[in-house]
Amino acid sequence: MIPNVLATRYASPAIQAIWSTDGRILLERELWIAVMKAQRDLGIEIPEEAIAAYERVKNTINIESIRKREEITRHDVKARIEEFCDLAGYEHIHKGMTSRDLTENVEQLQVYKSLEQIRNKAIAALHLLAKKAQLYKELSITGRTHNVAAQTTTFGKRLSMFGEEILLSVKQVIFLIENYPVRGLKGAVGTQMDQLTLFNGNIEKVAQLEECIVKHLEIKASFTNVGQVYPRSLDYATVSALYQLAAGPSSFAKTLRLMTGHETASEGFAKGQVGSSAMPHKMNSRSCERINGFAVILNGYLNMAAGLSGDQWNEGDVSCSVVRRVCLPDAFFAIDGLLETFLTILNQMEVFVAVIERENRYYQPFLLTTTIMMEAVKRGVGRETAHEVIKEHAVQTVRDLRNGSIEKNDFLDRLAKDGRLKLSANELQDIVSIAGNHSGMASAQVSMFCDQVSSLVSMYPESLNIQPGRIL
Amino acid sequence: MIPNVLATRYASPAIQAIWSTDGRILLERELWIAVMKAQRDLGIEIPEEAIAAYERVKNTINIESIRKREEITRHDVKARIEEFCDLAGYEHIHKGMTSRDLTENVEQLQVYKSLEQIRNKAIAALHLLAKKAQLYKELSITGRTHNVAAQTTTFGKRLSMFGEEILLSVKQVIFLIENYPVRGLKGAVGTQMDQLTLFNGNIEKVAQLEECIVKHLEIKASFTNVGQVYPRSLDYATVSALYQLAAGPSSFAKTLRLMTGHETASEGFAKGQVGSSAMPHKMNSRSCERINGFAVILNGYLNMAAGLSGDQWNEGDVSCSVVRRVCLPDAFFAIDGLLETFLTILNQMEVFVAVIERENRYYQPFLLTTTIMMEAVKRGVGRETAHEVIKEHAVQTVRDLRNGSIEKNDFLDRLAKDGRLKLSANELQDIVSIAGNHSGMASAQVSMFCDQVSSLVSMYPESLNIQPGRIL
Amino acid sequence: MIPNVLATRYASPAIQAIWSTDGRILLERELWIAVMKAQRDLGIEIPEEAIAAYERVKNTINIESIRKREEITRHDVKARIEEFCDLAGYEHIHKGMTSRDLTENVEQLQVYKSLEQIRNKAIAALHLLAKKAQLYKELSITGRTHNVAAQTTTFGKRLSMFGEEILLSVKQVIFLIENYPVRGLKGAVGTQMDQLTLFNGNIEKVAQLEECIVKHLEIKASFTNVGQVYPRSLDYATVSALYQLAAGPSSFAKTLRLMTGHETASEGFAKGQVGSSAMPHKMNSRSCERINGFAVILNGYLNMAAGLSGDQWNEGDVSCSVVRRVCLPDAFFAIDGLLETFLTILNQMEVFVAVIERENRYYQPFLLTTTIMMEAVKRGVGRETAHEVIKEHAVQTVRDLRNGSIEKNDFLDRLAKDGRLKLSANELQDIVSIAGNHSGMASAQVSMFCDQVSSLVSMYPESLNIQPGRIL
Amino acid sequence: MIPNVLATRYASPAIQAIWSTDGRILLERELWIAVMKAQRDLGIEIPEEAIAAYERVKNTINIESIRKREEITRHDVKARIEEFCDLAGYEHIHKGMTSRDLTENVEQLQVYKSLEQIRNKAIAALHLLAKKAQLYKELSITGRTHNVAAQTTTFGKRLSMFGEEILLSVKQVIFLIENYPVRGLKGAVGTQMDQLTLFNGNIEKVAQLEECIVKHLEIKASFTNVGQVYPRSLDYATVSALYQLAAGPSSFAKTLRLMTGHETASEGFAKGQVGSSAMPHKMNSRSCERINGFAVILNGYLNMAAGLSGDQWNEGDVSCSVVRRVCLPDAFFAIDGLLETFLTILNQMEVFVAVIERENRYYQPFLLTTTIMMEAVKRGVGRETAHEVIKEHAVQTVRDLRNGSIEKNDFLDRLAKDGRLKLSANELQDIVSIAGNHSGMASAQVSMFCDQVSSLVSMYPESLNIQPGRIL
Repeated sequence: MIPNVLATRYASPAIQAIWSTDGRILLERELWIAVMKAQRDLGIEIPEEAIAAYERVKNTINIESIRKREEITRHDVKARIEEFCDLAGYEHIHKGMTSRDLTENVEQLQVYKSLEQIRNKAIAALHLLAKKAQLYKELSITGRTHNVAAQTTTFGKRLSMFGEEILLSVKQVIFLIENYPVRGLKGAVGTQMDQLTLFNGNIEKVAQLEECIVKHLEIKASFTNVGQVYPRSLDYATVSALYQLAAGPSSFAKTLRLMTGHETASEGFAKGQVGSSAMPHKMNSRSCERINGFAVILNGYLNMAAGLSGDQWNEGDVSCSVVRRVCLPDAFFAIDGLLETFLTILNQMEVFVAVIERENRYYQPFLLTTTIMMEAVKRGVGRETAHEVIKEHAVQTVRDLRNGSIEKNDFLDRLAKDGRLKLSANELQDIVSIAGNHSGMASAQVSMFCDQVSSLVSMYPESLNIQPGRIL
Repeated sequence: MIPNVLATRYASPAIQAIWSTDGRILLERELWIAVMKAQRDLGIEIPEEAIAAYERVKNTINIESIRKREEITRHDVKARIEEFCDLAGYEHIHKGMTSRDLTENVEQLQVYKSLEQIRNKAIAALHLLAKKAQLYKELSITGRTHNVAAQTTTFGKRLSMFGEEILLSVKQVIFLIENYPVRGLKGAVGTQMDQLTLFNGNIEKVAQLEECIVKHLEIKASFTNVGQVYPRSLDYATVSALYQLAAGPSSFAKTLRLMTGHETASEGFAKGQVGSSAMPHKMNSRSCERINGFAVILNGYLNMAAGLSGDQWNEGDVSCSVVRRVCLPDAFFAIDGLLETFLTILNQMEVFVAVIERENRYYQPFLLTTTIMMEAVKRGVGRETAHEVIKEHAVQTVRDLRNGSIEKNDFLDRLAKDGRLKLSANELQDIVSIAGNHSGMASAQVSMFCDQVSSLVSMYPESLNIQPGRIL
Repeated sequence: MIPNVLATRYASPAIQAIWSTDGRILLERELWIAVMKAQRDLGIEIPEEAIAAYERVKNTINIESIRKREEITRHDVKARIEEFCDLAGYEHIHKGMTSRDLTENVEQLQVYKSLEQIRNKAIAALHLLAKKAQLYKELSITGRTHNVAAQTTTFGKRLSMFGEEILLSVKQVIFLIENYPVRGLKGAVGTQMDQLTLFNGNIEKVAQLEECIVKHLEIKASFTNVGQVYPRSLDYATVSALYQLAAGPSSFAKTLRLMTGHETASEGFAKGQVGSSAMPHKMNSRSCERINGFAVILNGYLNMAAGLSGDQWNEGDVSCSVVRRVCLPDAFFAIDGLLETFLTILNQMEVFVAVIERENRYYQPFLLTTTIMMEAVKRGVGRETAHEVIKEHAVQTVRDLRNGSIEKNDFLDRLAKDGRLKLSANELQDIVSIAGNHSGMASAQVSMFCDQVSSLVSMYPESLNIQPGRIL
Repeated sequence: MIPNVLATRYASPAIQAIWSTDGRILLERELWIAVMKAQRDLGIEIPEEAIAAYERVKNTINIESIRKREEITRHDVKARIEEFCDLAGYEHIHKGMTSRDLTENVEQLQVYKSLEQIRNKAIAALHLLAKKAQLYKELSITGRTHNVAAQTTTFGKRLSMFGEEILLSVKQVIFLIENYPVRGLKGAVGTQMDQLTLFNGNIEKVAQLEECIVKHLEIKASFTNVGQVYPRSLDYATVSALYQLAAGPSSFAKTLRLMTGHETASEGFAKGQVGSSAMPHKMNSRSCERINGFAVILNGYLNMAAGLSGDQWNEGDVSCSVVRRVCLPDAFFAIDGLLETFLTILNQMEVFVAVIERENRYYQPFLLTTTIMMEAVKRGVGRETAHEVIKEHAVQTVRDLRNGSIEKNDFLDRLAKDGRLKLSANELQDIVSIAGNHSGMASAQVSMFCDQVSSLVSMYPESLNIQPGRIL
């Protein structure tokens, strides 16, 4: 049998368990039993021994037998009803229910439990990231924009930058969980008509049944007005939150791949690991690349969920069915694999201080052009004039260095000689020595990030129990 | 000049104003002036007459002149700095600032103002939808799933179903607005270094400047750790919220197109309107179709925003630039056009009660199969047995009707004759007369939707001022 | 283990076989052996017994053992090299090769074989569709645009319309197959350097080895300039061709769902089938809906492939790896499932002539408004004037019918009374009787479609052997 | 008025002209006149003076007047018919035509002309790229995979790699152009009924009219079976070809951005250009970044076109209308802007040989690990054993270099000392001196690329006239 590659290669056992075929069937059966019990408590005549019989066989799950039934009925839920009833020897489940009363609730439960897992794992990643940001908050690096040297920043600040993006996306996940409404038992077109018939028109009892089932599911919010299905924009919102969550790790991974190219950092290289089957010296950023791959995958599942959103015909249809079978579990497998990989990298990444310092030295005079410009401005030079003068000399110096016509960077000398800037060689030297590796308010910013993570962790302390598995 | 078709054909003047070229340049200049004033207040030497000069020329906007400058600098912001400085005769703006200190904040302001507009317009649509739902809450219609007759519901309930989806998406928009963080003046790589230099290392003053500018922008939240740019997943989250908001109207529009095919309702047909240039009798759902078109468009812009998310290299680059120039304004034009169209349809749609009743009668015995099944179950028949018996007769009756071998629907007679169901002809007749057009808890559900809308409207009373323009 | 739901529920055994884990490992081993043999034939010293040993164990595939190796090497290909070598007791495979020399070629082979399968299945569907189009080429139906009655067409023509779209997409698939270039043995950065080293700089021998391997793969075209990887836009083009192929069946399926809503046709309903677990009378278009679902899924995989296209860094990386593991096989599973479903529907669909005729009669006078207009134009009435007059009466007649103020459609009487149109009651009556169910050149168009299909089938006669499996 | 930013900032005048509002109205009017003339030639009574009148006013295009009409008709084509007729003083256009007989053909003509432009521009880019590849075909560079040093390649080969990807996509564009079918005059539901009525049932004349119009459009292929609309998967195929075409330039641009980070190459920096408004020393890859931005934009328009594909209801509707108004022209503006930028970069890019050589020296011993391995293998060492030994020493050497514990790369010494490899220090030294900057068959591969480009250019010699405009 062809396995689900995302589940089996990348996802954690916890997420796999939520979405396994057996696990799902059990959730369904538990929901049916919960409905039966609630119906009985509210006066529907259901023999105790029937409920007991269903309870007794609920773990007897034979997927092959169900599949055979489905080949005849061409209706997956009907096949599972018949299987369960035959096993129990009764026909008391699914009363007043339509298929979607079963499947929508169970799938929402799977989504909800998965969201909680992912929230915790993302917080665990933030916790680890904050620790690293703290560790490196003073380590000056050559900040780059457009991939070229720009100004000094610190490595901790760089991590916090990605961290703050993740924080924002975790807040979105939390908002989703807190407001995620379950469909409940709404019947074939959403009017709760068959339960109402079953209870002889007793509105009160229908409401009690509904309340009872929502409680069984342990989801806080619930819908009132749905059709056969809950609105698919909720599935969209779910996958969208996961995609947003992928952004921070993905940007981090791209940046680490770039740093690896400059040998300033790496994702680590385990004992026994092979970088390339051809080139023995290679130490590749394959885990970082994988994170970027997962982000692309999530974008694909987002596209699927987006394709269902806003496409409801009347009270609903099942053109969404095959799509949701794919995009809901697989999106969770992908984000889970992404976070597992991210945690692993955070644990194993290496920072090469010697190379970082070499790079800083190499770019140093240029990293200070804004500082020099500000000092000139303070001395009354027009901002745009100062910009022009510095640009002229910087561009020429770089050209001379690149074509080999000079060996040593003499940018400061050139500036000193240019009267327009009103800065002497000594003054320029002072600026460089003072500003040096100065990185503005980077360190203070890192602290603020760490504080935010701390308070989030204290709200979800269970997240600290998360440990990444050993990734392939 | 080729116009932006979304802006000029579909968007409201209010949204167009936010995104116009002139409007944007004015916002930029106001931000520069705000920064200058704040810097002066905090001790930077900037002559009063310079500020006055900038104030004086801020409305002198010559796009052609700026464009010519850009052809030389190949840098749009530098071109606009030079234009403004030349107009004023000073060089005091943009001190300690990088381009993104200007553009990111101004673009975020445009996004923020647009989000507020869209939130209000969506609430206005909910208000109108709730009124219609209330009006039709008792009007029985043939509920359809898989596009075939299923069970009775009411038209008001059908509207509420789409309405509740919209409610959920409006909550997402509100969450986004409340938590939307502005980038602020963070400098070239996000460390606030140049402002710090400008203020001679006075951290306090840098923080005050920052606070002052965030206040100028009137956005509540702000980032601490960013690079050159704010994280692009925020743009993604923005467009995603708009796409989610499109889902409810889009499903409503598809359903109205389907109803139009059955002549049970229409989007209305204005005086003078032409349905088809070929076929004079046509009255097309062209506005509904347009809503579905806008949803497809928004999915495209979502895809663009998704393509930027998680693609940050180091402290940032401008591979996002051209994309954001397109997808941010155009996504707002599209959702605005969608909501304008939606409001128009809600105002003009027609409901054909006579045709609806004809359809109900046509499908009546079948719409009650679940009710009949529940009654059989109450009489002790096994649920699956009852299902099988009813299915057998229903399918055969339909076949006989469709191939013309019977004229009159005799489904109930067939059921009465089948002993397995334990329901006499009289009992079946009673079920039909009692259940009749019964639509479960539809009416109560509608009321709950209307209540939710009311409380939302009371939180944003300004939304009631929104009136759709005359759409093309 | 969590199965791949697309493969196991929907794809045919033939496509599953191509993408199974075992099948893939065997293809790899056969490629290694082919390379070894070719290297030996070209003079590299490789003992016969080594080759024999590899041949002997090539079917001994132990996935668990390979997985354990990968946990150490964190490199899937290295794990598979080591497994195969350990089994054989030699180290002679993979000489001068990089991982991608193995994986790219094998994956391209899987893609290529799958494309051939899909081409044949699509042609089989066209063959069946043409038969149905031929059968119904004279059956008049109410053509609809904007989902409302427009003009008469025939059901065969409607089918041909979707068929001609499929024809166009099959031509695209054929173009792709005919021009699909395989990567070949290009080495670590694409320069063939290691093979050149192995052959002591003998360019001729490297070219012979290359030729030999391309021949082994049985793919016609090949790349010259690649890096470590072949360009990912080729994967994009592949999935894009599949998505384009989904369009025709998808539009057909949507239209059949709409027709089912009007009871003019259905996808068929098998013996034992259950439409709804709640509503026994339901006969749902679930297979058509599934086709539409598959199209949404394919769009998602398209998005993944698009996310890899144009994202190559230098000579390549593996950020594509996890994405291609998902989107290549799964896109083929989805299109295969779609075509299986499509074939099944074409075999089983039902057309309800009695209902179709009822609909035609109901809309008849309106379906002829263009004919009436043309006749008026021939009598010298201005085209726009005629349009206005007919529109006026048609719109009013419809309104009167819908609100119940008239019972009988008196549209023609109204036209006859309006002097502006210059058509008497008798003339109008004549137009109706003559034009009747006339459907222009529909029948001739259908024949042209059938001819095109015939000549395609004669080019790929093997496609006639395709029979859909029994779908779930 | 808000301009279309893609058109006005980035697209060439040639593409803008095709899609301008005036240009489109003129194309429509010319089509109407062509139909009138053909109808007259085939016997329909149309006065010569009417045709002359339409001809006389065809260039009198008043967009505001048309817009006012559309506000009443809510039908854009009807508004344009009325405007043209009022101007001419006759009502003889649009006979037997439905709106789509006009709009589909005109839009297809715009697409077709644009495709030809883009094909030529892409070939011009290939021509320029081949010249650069030829120029640098022997310039050794450090090939990188996973963004880390792998093996030597040449800069010309790197360019050819991207070039061969572009070649493949140009072939796709050519295939599309050669097989692009125009819809023709097919009437309201595609049956050509109204033309048939007009010609009193004369099939021959309808066919002649059709032929005449296809000839007027100068498009080779045409559809037979369409509905109101041609299948939207053709629009999808069009945008898809453009997206595929973006891949090669996009990968080239990413790679040049990476090279710029290493200072081995740059996109050039024009006189007067400003890199950063803050940092005067910056020389950014802003044009390369823009190319990557355009690719993201094209993916968005692809998504829109994909959203229309397979979504046809019956004979068609206009839910596609607003989408096509956006995605067709804007996709062409984007690809045109991308190619303009690409041509500019190819003209201006700089290659820094001194830096490239420094990098080669830095990585040299590692770039040869496969060569060393092959030599060991030739001496009888097991391939996997050799791999392990080399990996061990390479990884340790790198670690020692990065943490500063050694200054000089002593990798070869370590290998020489390890008996397992059977290579002496002298032998190793020989390998290095011989292999040196050797780059396999890179040079020969480049020549093959250039040959392919030459033959393509000779097929489309007009492409050599293409010159990029001055980009912003």
